[in-house]
Amino acid sequence: MLRVRNRDVLFVVGVGLKKEHLTDEAKKVISRAKKVYGSAKAIKIAEDWIVGEKVIMKKFGEEIYREIERESEESDVVVLSTGDPMVAGLGKFFRDAEIVPGISSVQVALGRIKADLCEVSVLNAHSQEPGLSEERNLMILAKKGVRLEFLGKRMIVLENLEGEDEKIYQVQDTFETESDYTVVFVEVKK
Amino acid sequence: MLRVRNRDVLFVVGVGLKKEHLTDEAKKVISRAKKVYGSAKAIKIAEDWIVGEKVIMKKFGEEIYREIERESEESDVVVLSTGDPMVAGLGKFFRDAEIVPGISSVQVALGRIKADLCEVSVLNAHSQEPGLSEERNLMILAKKGVRLEFLGKRMIVLENLEGEDEKIYQVQDTFETESDYTVVFVEVKK
Repeated sequence: MLRVRNRDVLFVVGVGLKKEHLTDEAKKVISRAKKVYGSAKAIKIAEDWIVGEKVIMKKFGEEIYREIERESEESDVVVLSTGDPMVAGLGKFFRDAEIVPGISSVQVALGRIKADLCEVSVLNAHSQEPGLSEERNLMILAKKGVRLEFLGKRMIVLENLEGEDEKIYQVQDTFETESDYTVVFVEVKK
Repeated sequence: MLRVRNRDVLFVVGVGLKKEHLTDEAKKVISRAKKVYGSAKAIKIAEDWIVGEKVIMKKFGEEIYREIERESEESDVVVLSTGDPMVAGLGKFFRDAEIVPGISSVQVALGRIKADLCEVSVLNAHSQEPGLSEERNLMILAKKGVRLEFLGKRMIVLENLEGEDEKIYQVQDTFETESDYTVVFVEVKK
């Protein structure tokens, strides 16, 4: 579920690659914001739902991100991210934001070539040279009763995401999944 | 763009994890179908948009998938997939289907823990034991002017996905990206 907070909150909202990708959740969050930041492309996809002030971002970087965070302490602010905020997106730059997912180019590409995400590694060549042998954290999709063993590693267990019984907790070393809808994040990289 | 065909077409449609995850694209495709297949969970998420016949799938496997494909030759058929069809989903089982992406548990999980997809490998423990050292195909997100070299490998270049100028083509060995919105799939595994 989308957690409700008493204070104003910063949302980073994925808008997908075109208007038809917008989810009802994204539309709702965008339409409630006093101020909406985004690239020209992201603003264009979301424009039918923007009621507050639009700000087209021309530069990206720590300075502007921290300024947006300060603004969000006083007013509802949304930062739009084309595609999904957590796929080579802006989500990771805002530590305290709520993330609203969107359809990413990775998903569209996988659909076109009929490959499953679980068969590929996704690399971001926007920000770095793609490295083939790079050590990666793991995200494991599992049903109930799968035993995982990662000695010395921390795991974050995410159960029943978006359900009323959503639960997120940490375990160490070994874990047996307890729900048919479990995602386990294993911190392999230090 | 969603390509329009003259004959009836099978769509595999991602419905996300809850009603608010449905995209306008998904709603449109679902509401046009004469017959909609899906798990009880997927049907429940999409039910407000189903006009045709609902079929709750209780078993999954080659036999039922081929039967659905035969049906789709005579009538518009939709198969719903919770989350995204290409994330441990049903998409890869239907070679000739159009895929409509949806919000997956992977995206929601990444948003909760603020990790980017480009830092993780996603494994499906529903269907296999998670293997850490498994060789994987690559999906590289790049802007214009990135030079890729994978000698002896086939690459599928996907440019401007969902744009009017979407283009998909194959190259071999080396490639320099030509668009700011490029995804390159590298076939590493045989």
